[in-house]
Amino acid sequence: MTELAKRISVAFFGIPLLLATTYLGGWYFFAVILIISTVAQWEFYHIQKEKSIFPRTLPGIMLGTLLLTGVQLKAWSLTGLLLTAGIMLLMITEMFRRQTAVSANLGVTMLGILYIPFFLGCLLYIRYFLDIMFPQIPDAGFRFVLTMFVTIWICDTFAYGFGRKIGRHKLYQKVSPNKTIEGGIAGVIGSLLVLFIVKETGILPLTWFQAIAFGLVFGVIGQLGDLVESWFKRDAGVKDSSAILPGHGGMLDRFDSIIFVSPALLILTRTFWP
Amino acid sequence: MTELAKRISVAFFGIPLLLATTYLGGWYFFAVILIISTVAQWEFYHIQKEKSIFPRTLPGIMLGTLLLTGVQLKAWSLTGLLLTAGIMLLMITEMFRRQTAVSANLGVTMLGILYIPFFLGCLLYIRYFLDIMFPQIPDAGFRFVLTMFVTIWICDTFAYGFGRKIGRHKLYQKVSPNKTIEGGIAGVIGSLLVLFIVKETGILPLTWFQAIAFGLVFGVIGQLGDLVESWFKRDAGVKDSSAILPGHGGMLDRFDSIIFVSPALLILTRTFWP
Repeated sequence: MTELAKRISVAFFGIPLLLATTYLGGWYFFAVILIISTVAQWEFYHIQKEKSIFPRTLPGIMLGTLLLTGVQLKAWSLTGLLLTAGIMLLMITEMFRRQTAVSANLGVTMLGILYIPFFLGCLLYIRYFLDIMFPQIPDAGFRFVLTMFVTIWICDTFAYGFGRKIGRHKLYQKVSPNKTIEGGIAGVIGSLLVLFIVKETGILPLTWFQAIAFGLVFGVIGQLGDLVESWFKRDAGVKDSSAILPGHGGMLDRFDSIIFVSPALLILTRTFWP
Repeated sequence: MTELAKRISVAFFGIPLLLATTYLGGWYFFAVILIISTVAQWEFYHIQKEKSIFPRTLPGIMLGTLLLTGVQLKAWSLTGLLLTAGIMLLMITEMFRRQTAVSANLGVTMLGILYIPFFLGCLLYIRYFLDIMFPQIPDAGFRFVLTMFVTIWICDTFAYGFGRKIGRHKLYQKVSPNKTIEGGIAGVIGSLLVLFIVKETGILPLTWFQAIAFGLVFGVIGQLGDLVESWFKRDAGVKDSSAILPGHGGMLDRFDSIIFVSPALLILTRTFWP
């Protein structure tokens, strides 16, 4: 099977699965977020070994699962206390390992929990919270999250497509040698286009200001998320976060923009509708 | 001035200052916690350079300050959103630095925020929260926090004193060559003694079970906090976290047990009185 064929096959099953579970919300959406988070977090920890850093993979993933479960159950107090106890336990047990890069090991473990399950936890939260906040709009949570997904995918496509055609000035050679400024701008324009359509069709009740804000944030932060993830990979000296998604690379590669935009979606939403 | 004289001078001014601000609570207590947190966090970041790790010291301390201020103002939502934005900004700007240990730098920066201002934030919170939770006990917050301080200091003293006299079996050579199991047990016994006195004199309305629990937790977790901090220092190859407190070493050296017990105090309190 060619790379392109593999890529299309994965997307053929993956995209409907993601969209269906996002629509259904509840524990369906939780399940798919948990899977993405766990695999991406595992990949993030795994590539660190190239730099002789040995994060606490299993405890890190367990704490990430605890965090996401706590968000889904809205058990803020209990989850906060359990996570705190978990962090303390992590620090105490680090002394019993044979690894010597203590601060780096612990630090990268914490970073993995903040970067992936905590950021995705924001998405999990916003999916049900928006339903509560906009009872007058049917499927409000689904509409917002779907808008975010579509915007990021269109941004990606525009950046890649226009980048290939008209890209001339490198965006950030050190981090990502193939990206261009022209592609980046095209991506942001693509994002704004999607938000324009979402507003004009009334899919979401946004003012012009809000539509532009979401478009810019999704487009810019989404691409920054891609760059940050590329920077982590360069740091570790790897090309893909893993080979788990045939034709796509790793889970983290595929969802890096969604992961990074999730907290931005939460922040923007809470800012516009406090 | 001899080392002992310096040590006594610092304690002569430091202990009353700490106790007075703890008693007064409010912004006085906040100020002293902020100072301890900032200096200790700075020290934690500073010793990492010995391992060629370059954490984001200023942003890390700023986020720590934001966290503590948010706890004091009880502005949970706003602080959470600002901290999240801060973490995203930290990750984005890491790409523009010339350092190459990206994950380690970011990870250790996050670790510093969790270990010190977040843990001390638990202490800040419990100081005013206990006043609210026990309105029938005058100065409830002060009494609990004072009990914690005194227990840790007595535990320290017993562990050191009895350790010197009857200490024979090493506790954990790799981490802290001078500590002994006998000293450790003496420390826990000292902690239990303090809690016994606190219960019997009615300073705090504790059952026997609660008194023993607090005694064990303060004694064990306090000593583990000391070991964890020693392990960080060994990892960095330094003897003291800094020379900022004449005769005592660094701020982190001085407050490592208090820092580590703070979240434990919060967890135990929320467990006994949910």
